[in-house]
Amino acid sequence: MPMSCTHIQVMEFNMRSHYCGQLNESLVDQHVTLCGWVHRRRDHGGVIFIDLRDRDGIAQVVVNPDMADAFATADRSRSEYVLKVEGLVRLRPEGTRNPDMPTGMIEVVAEHVQVLNESKTPPFQLEEHNVKVGEDIRLKHRYIDLRRPEMIERFRMRSRVTHFVRNYLEEHGFLDVETPILTRATPEGARDYLVPSRTHPGEFFALPQSPQLFKQLLMVSGFDRYYQVAKCFRDEDLRADRQPEFTQIDIEASFIDEEAIMSITEDMIRNLFKNVLDVELPAKFDRMPYSEAMHRFGSDKPDMRIPLEMIDISDLMSRVDFKVFSGPAKDDNGRVAALKVPGGAKLSRKEIDEYTNFVSIYGAKGLAWIKVNDRKAGLDGLQSPIVKFMTDVIDELMERLDAQDGDIIFFGADRTRIVNEALGALRVRLGEDLNLYTQRWAPLWVVDFPTFEKDDSGKLSACHHPFTAPACSVEEFRANPGDSLSRAYDMVLNGTELGGGSIRIHEQDMQRAVFEVLGISEEEAEEKFGFLLDALQYGAPPHGGLAFGLDRLVMLMTGASTIRDVIAFPKTQSAACPLTDAPGEVSEAQLKELNLRLRKRDA
Amino acid sequence: MPMSCTHIQVMEFNMRSHYCGQLNESLVDQHVTLCGWVHRRRDHGGVIFIDLRDRDGIAQVVVNPDMADAFATADRSRSEYVLKVEGLVRLRPEGTRNPDMPTGMIEVVAEHVQVLNESKTPPFQLEEHNVKVGEDIRLKHRYIDLRRPEMIERFRMRSRVTHFVRNYLEEHGFLDVETPILTRATPEGARDYLVPSRTHPGEFFALPQSPQLFKQLLMVSGFDRYYQVAKCFRDEDLRADRQPEFTQIDIEASFIDEEAIMSITEDMIRNLFKNVLDVELPAKFDRMPYSEAMHRFGSDKPDMRIPLEMIDISDLMSRVDFKVFSGPAKDDNGRVAALKVPGGAKLSRKEIDEYTNFVSIYGAKGLAWIKVNDRKAGLDGLQSPIVKFMTDVIDELMERLDAQDGDIIFFGADRTRIVNEALGALRVRLGEDLNLYTQRWAPLWVVDFPTFEKDDSGKLSACHHPFTAPACSVEEFRANPGDSLSRAYDMVLNGTELGGGSIRIHEQDMQRAVFEVLGISEEEAEEKFGFLLDALQYGAPPHGGLAFGLDRLVMLMTGASTIRDVIAFPKTQSAACPLTDAPGEVSEAQLKELNLRLRKRDA
Repeated sequence: MPMSCTHIQVMEFNMRSHYCGQLNESLVDQHVTLCGWVHRRRDHGGVIFIDLRDRDGIAQVVVNPDMADAFATADRSRSEYVLKVEGLVRLRPEGTRNPDMPTGMIEVVAEHVQVLNESKTPPFQLEEHNVKVGEDIRLKHRYIDLRRPEMIERFRMRSRVTHFVRNYLEEHGFLDVETPILTRATPEGARDYLVPSRTHPGEFFALPQSPQLFKQLLMVSGFDRYYQVAKCFRDEDLRADRQPEFTQIDIEASFIDEEAIMSITEDMIRNLFKNVLDVELPAKFDRMPYSEAMHRFGSDKPDMRIPLEMIDISDLMSRVDFKVFSGPAKDDNGRVAALKVPGGAKLSRKEIDEYTNFVSIYGAKGLAWIKVNDRKAGLDGLQSPIVKFMTDVIDELMERLDAQDGDIIFFGADRTRIVNEALGALRVRLGEDLNLYTQRWAPLWVVDFPTFEKDDSGKLSACHHPFTAPACSVEEFRANPGDSLSRAYDMVLNGTELGGGSIRIHEQDMQRAVFEVLGISEEEAEEKFGFLLDALQYGAPPHGGLAFGLDRLVMLMTGASTIRDVIAFPKTQSAACPLTDAPGEVSEAQLKELNLRLRKRDA
Repeated sequence: MPMSCTHIQVMEFNMRSHYCGQLNESLVDQHVTLCGWVHRRRDHGGVIFIDLRDRDGIAQVVVNPDMADAFATADRSRSEYVLKVEGLVRLRPEGTRNPDMPTGMIEVVAEHVQVLNESKTPPFQLEEHNVKVGEDIRLKHRYIDLRRPEMIERFRMRSRVTHFVRNYLEEHGFLDVETPILTRATPEGARDYLVPSRTHPGEFFALPQSPQLFKQLLMVSGFDRYYQVAKCFRDEDLRADRQPEFTQIDIEASFIDEEAIMSITEDMIRNLFKNVLDVELPAKFDRMPYSEAMHRFGSDKPDMRIPLEMIDISDLMSRVDFKVFSGPAKDDNGRVAALKVPGGAKLSRKEIDEYTNFVSIYGAKGLAWIKVNDRKAGLDGLQSPIVKFMTDVIDELMERLDAQDGDIIFFGADRTRIVNEALGALRVRLGEDLNLYTQRWAPLWVVDFPTFEKDDSGKLSACHHPFTAPACSVEEFRANPGDSLSRAYDMVLNGTELGGGSIRIHEQDMQRAVFEVLGISEEEAEEKFGFLLDALQYGAPPHGGLAFGLDRLVMLMTGASTIRDVIAFPKTQSAACPLTDAPGEVSEAQLKELNLRLRKRDA
């Protein structure tokens, strides 16, 4: 990977002549000055070997006893001491060369060694982190954790990703505009972080969940193309892999339609992967309607690397005399689906039990299955606790699923939402457990989202956000809002939503109609979004955009397993920082100035 | 100025074929499609002329009555309507060409005109803003205010500045690393914005006043070179031209000294001006010790475009029998200085009175002056209310000041701080009022700052911040901290501090010594900066950096008169946003969740 910084002119940086990782055979017989940390030190045959580490790599320094001062200094150096080493580059003796290491052909024979700073014994060894060290200790001493070469590499990658994206967007005429962090509370579902105002007692700013309204206002201003790598904030419970603050690549443009914005952002991601990872993504990303994604994969962000899909069998199962299946099969809000796993017949009972537990997280009451041991043998060749209930349809079922010997077939039968979530999650889990991936990278556009989703009580909420344009006229929308599709699109990569966006509403009538359907009164709309409704009356152009989750993008690109590994100073699951010990208490005087008082704790 | 975006591929953006500002004679006889706003409309001889405006410029559209549909649409179009226009480019008839306008040679004969959105009559005309429109109205309808071509131009410039700086720093090996916005309160003097934590009741995050400690921790992590275009926050009373949130170009590097960091950042600014403004700054910026800057210009950010300087005359005035002068002249903490203004004898009494009022803002109790009408005539040639008190030294004074006929000489006599501030400010004011500037751009490094400044009670506070390295050993520092100089440097441009920085303390001993001098107890240091002191023990490299104020830099480069004109959605002087009406009230439920209660207002 093109990660080296050998192109850097270091001359103006006067303490060193080279980065450790820059050393190679071309420098043999040259004097160099290195600065870095003692990564490892060992004494061998009266000679001290120091692996000196800096951002760019590790170089082996040899300190011979005949250089008395250097030797004495090296001798007192411990792990993580900061050294300045001057010496001569030479080829390592034959037999000690290490072709696996970029600097493995050479070593530096030290002439001067200077301790620039000492180090206490670190609380953990850099190599040990995965094995023995808890994340809390790593976060508390984050400045040590970040020294691990793989960590630095991730942040170099992050810097390159951001930089590439910025260059791409600038070249395409997007203006980098900063929008406020201290802003007004927005009712976008998740919770706002609030900031008490000192100059307006009793009032609060909110930290933005996204720059959504500001970027729309910039379009009304005629800025035409906007982007920002923007900090966003959500005070949610940190389930899964979330952070209170996260970063969006935020994009908006005017006088465009969804084809235009999808084409340019797709091109950007394709070029990003080519440039930073040397990966060729498909020349055109597949597109899939939301309804198809839910139907085939039980998810609006299907992982297309996994060659499994859900097959609908409601029509068959409505005929069986097994209420667990026939009930949902006959219910308009129910679904019966099968997930065939080639080669899955080898799964043990224990493994199947584990999957049964797994799908119960998603509300499934069980996990029916059939192992196809010998399809030609008919019922005798099928191993299953439930096959006896479906003898009438078993042939049709085997045919529809094109079942092969060695397959296992899992079933979901419940309300549609539960079947989709349970089998959808099981599909992803099986893909991972059985390593079924057919490709390394599988991007996909999901399109044709419904404008609204209905919760169990029948209440509508915006599927994306309430500024998303429905794909119809105001009249058509008013006639049947619940069934309207929206002009939204999500980019999905390997089952992760990389980004999402939409063409926005640019007409006040439509915006008011959507607020109405959402049960937002005219008064409330005026109170909360008056400035947007105003702006839509003063010449708002057609516009739309998209926002990518930068943390998630970099996580995927670096192969990190959590976004915490691509954020320099992340918070824990309880939204705290073990390093700085934030949040913390503040003085009574500060509270008073903010016109606030703490409540007595509930007992 | 290279501001056009003619290089942009607009093909993927399907509603238009060109930006308005892109049209020129090379497109004559071609069909184009434009999208934009009705900037001006006039009817002339039965034909409608529309100046159509977009981000890139203005094009004249001609709508003839023989195109009935287009004409009807144009006829109902009003100011700020959003139109899509298809038509043929042609040369304007001779006599109607406008060489002052980039598109002034051509016009577009409309074939189709479509209203993409209507507009109510805007609350102010774009041209009128300076004359009639208060800033509050402009901020309330910021999306209209930002349509003014000069505003869009400023934000294009801002985007280019940021982009150039990022490219420069990336090319020099700096990594873009994001540091947290939700962090721990720091005691850096100005006030923190606080954010109550929901998950840790009674505790608060603070918004960072700068990423100072995080960037130092990144150096301890071996990141080696860091930068960030970082949002910073200060809850100060908004005197002068401040904003609650502002943006810093934040830079830090390891294994460097002040020469290195000054040389690279100076080179960056020089290249920035060359690239974005086509301005050649000096090949090497002048450097001036802090003490000299205070002495000659009464300021640590002297405006070097102004050829006036303060001349010390304490020695002369200690001899006169005029207590107002001789008192401060003899006082160790006092100063008597003169500011000679060539040609200033023409100032009226009224103007001088105004300047007297002006210096009183800075605590000066008066403003003595001498007009040199005819130096050869001796005392008779001098017009002044005070010359009678200094007859004994007048010749020496005239000589020292090299006074010429037509000069006015202003005097300051008071405590040194007041003299410096008053005469320093007067110097800048005179430079502006009398347009004395000798050059357009005058950059300067101010160096050799004292580590501490003493307030009137004798209490020491950090001149930059408490992490700035003194320019001496710990032993020397402890022996005489009050007189120590620091390794800090400020870059000044035209009297504005563009940026400031320092080599930081990287040794725990020195850091503890500085805290001690500042009266921070060991316990308090541990409580507030424990994580920094810890980090300094685990192999902190020598490091230093600098931060530029981006808003101020862009303000200077665009010639804007306030930073509010280079911030898309700024706050007012009372830290409010008239557009979104932030800050605002929040619900009792939200407060409860944050464990907070409002205080009863003080009566």
